Amino acid sequence: MIAGIDIGGTTSKIGLVQDGRVLRQTRIPTTGHADDKAFADALAVAVNSLLKEQGGTIKAVGIGAPNANQFTGIIEMAPNLPWKHDVPLARMMRDRLGVQSVLGNDANAAALGEWRYGAGQGFDDLLVVTIGTGVGSGFIVNGQLVLGSAGNAGELGHMTIVVDGRACTCGRKGCLETYVSIRGMRQTYAELADGLEVLKEEGVKCIADAAQRGDQAAMRTFKETVRWLAVGLANAVAITGPRRVVLFGGIVRSGDLLLAPLKKRFNEALLNIYQGRVDITVSALPDDDAALLGAAALGTLR
Amino acid sequence: MIAGIDIGGTTSKIGLVQDGRVLRQTRIPTTGHADDKAFADALAVAVNSLLKEQGGTIKAVGIGAPNANQFTGIIEMAPNLPWKHDVPLARMMRDRLGVQSVLGNDANAAALGEWRYGAGQGFDDLLVVTIGTGVGSGFIVNGQLVLGSAGNAGELGHMTIVVDGRACTCGRKGCLETYVSIRGMRQTYAELADGLEVLKEEGVKCIADAAQRGDQAAMRTFKETVRWLAVGLANAVAITGPRRVVLFGGIVRSGDLLLAPLKKRFNEALLNIYQGRVDITVSALPDDDAALLGAAALGTLR
Repeated sequence: MIAGIDIGGTTSKIGLVQDGRVLRQTRIPTTGHADDKAFADALAVAVNSLLKEQGGTIKAVGIGAPNANQFTGIIEMAPNLPWKHDVPLARMMRDRLGVQSVLGNDANAAALGEWRYGAGQGFDDLLVVTIGTGVGSGFIVNGQLVLGSAGNAGELGHMTIVVDGRACTCGRKGCLETYVSIRGMRQTYAELADGLEVLKEEGVKCIADAAQRGDQAAMRTFKETVRWLAVGLANAVAITGPRRVVLFGGIVRSGDLLLAPLKKRFNEALLNIYQGRVDITVSALPDDDAALLGAAALGTLR
Repeated sequence: MIAGIDIGGTTSKIGLVQDGRVLRQTRIPTTGHADDKAFADALAVAVNSLLKEQGGTIKAVGIGAPNANQFTGIIEMAPNLPWKHDVPLARMMRDRLGVQSVLGNDANAAALGEWRYGAGQGFDDLLVVTIGTGVGSGFIVNGQLVLGSAGNAGELGHMTIVVDGRACTCGRKGCLETYVSIRGMRQTYAELADGLEVLKEEGVKCIADAAQRGDQAAMRTFKETVRWLAVGLANAVAITGPRRVVLFGGIVRSGDLLLAPLKKRFNEALLNIYQGRVDITVSALPDDDAALLGAAALGTLR
């Protein structure tokens, strides 16, 4: 068994994983702890109580977190987590649980999870893109996760797709995620619609529902989103040449509105030598387990 | 020794390479042969006569060519070569010379050459970009050349940098090389200048000379080129996270006009987590030998 830990902004999940299945899981709040040490203590308590219930031992811990650097095992000043300093969580968990601990970027964890247990199995060249509040990505090249020289490669969401385009939370302009994420789609809708009633609800389901009702601005929002995403994915393909792209996140479940037109636009956006050679598919992992499986897949590394 | 062969549109170079040095070289025309077999015969004759002069034997042949697929060893319908069909040149040379032959894309050959013998030595994550008529690129990730699932990855020149931008020879729009190459810079100048006298000369040296004389459109052309290139390189960094970018080609020798401002704009264009962590440098290989060294580096593979 491997313990998988997925650190989120408000809640962290802890699970025991074996052979690509989550055997048992629990969750604790990420916020409200005295400090990062108290948080690590709480994670260790959770792992140990799962182990007590399940029986058996773990070989390793895998931890997925935002702003995590896999080389150093440190969460680097994550803007969406309670600690505004570096947290060496890999070492902290190893000290507490006595087994090897691998910390990785949550998007890379998702990529590894799809590769080991999901829709990416058997693909030595793979791209996994998670579309949510932002856009995360993990690249597999030659059967290895692409980490880059500093351990932080694979940021497709921060590829500039429009020079001098929309302002991004990263401080730059025109990043893919300013157009394609939940935030981006809501902005696109706001720019296209006469009124903003639809946006009173959070997320993008409200835009999808409006599009299903025939709302022109909502339909146009999906069309534009597909267009940007197709170009972003085609750009990624031109660099690493994956055989498959796996998409993850609630937005991509809008099949008729997003996935079907995306497949068409993506193939058109590809350089001719890649056309017909790259498929797009949606994650095959259960939504609830995906992050834990990804985190556990990190634990299998090294 | 390894025989390096660099196939160009009009001329092909043949050389004997040892320890990163070209010991002896010659060239033959690429055009004017009865067919691809006659061309391969002529290449083999050239290699053998170099070997006779030099003495000794070769361990392998490395061949760099446009539109070459390293997986199949085939030049795939190259628009700029005389043969409009697939040419299995790796096999053809192995048959003629009796040693292992590796055929690769010329841009990948350049990347391997820089990595083995040039400014990329010691970098396990590297990006090499060749700027000429078009823009070629080769990526090294985790100490391996990125070939992608079909053997044709690493086409940074065909990353879409402006959606619905300039028409590209690939049939698509807004590719990086429509802005940054010799052709792209000449188009930029033509769009900015009042008259086209400067462009009576071929290439971009005429634009560089005009910029040095204070010609406003020429200065602006370099400024715009630097801007597009900085964004294109920053996008590549966000995906594979190289520690170093090596630039190759006549244009990048325009130090004050291109390299100095590029370094500044590139660092500004990078996502914050990469800033200050990626350097840009110009190829350290002699112009005349670079293609042969790159081709020979291909021969060292497998």
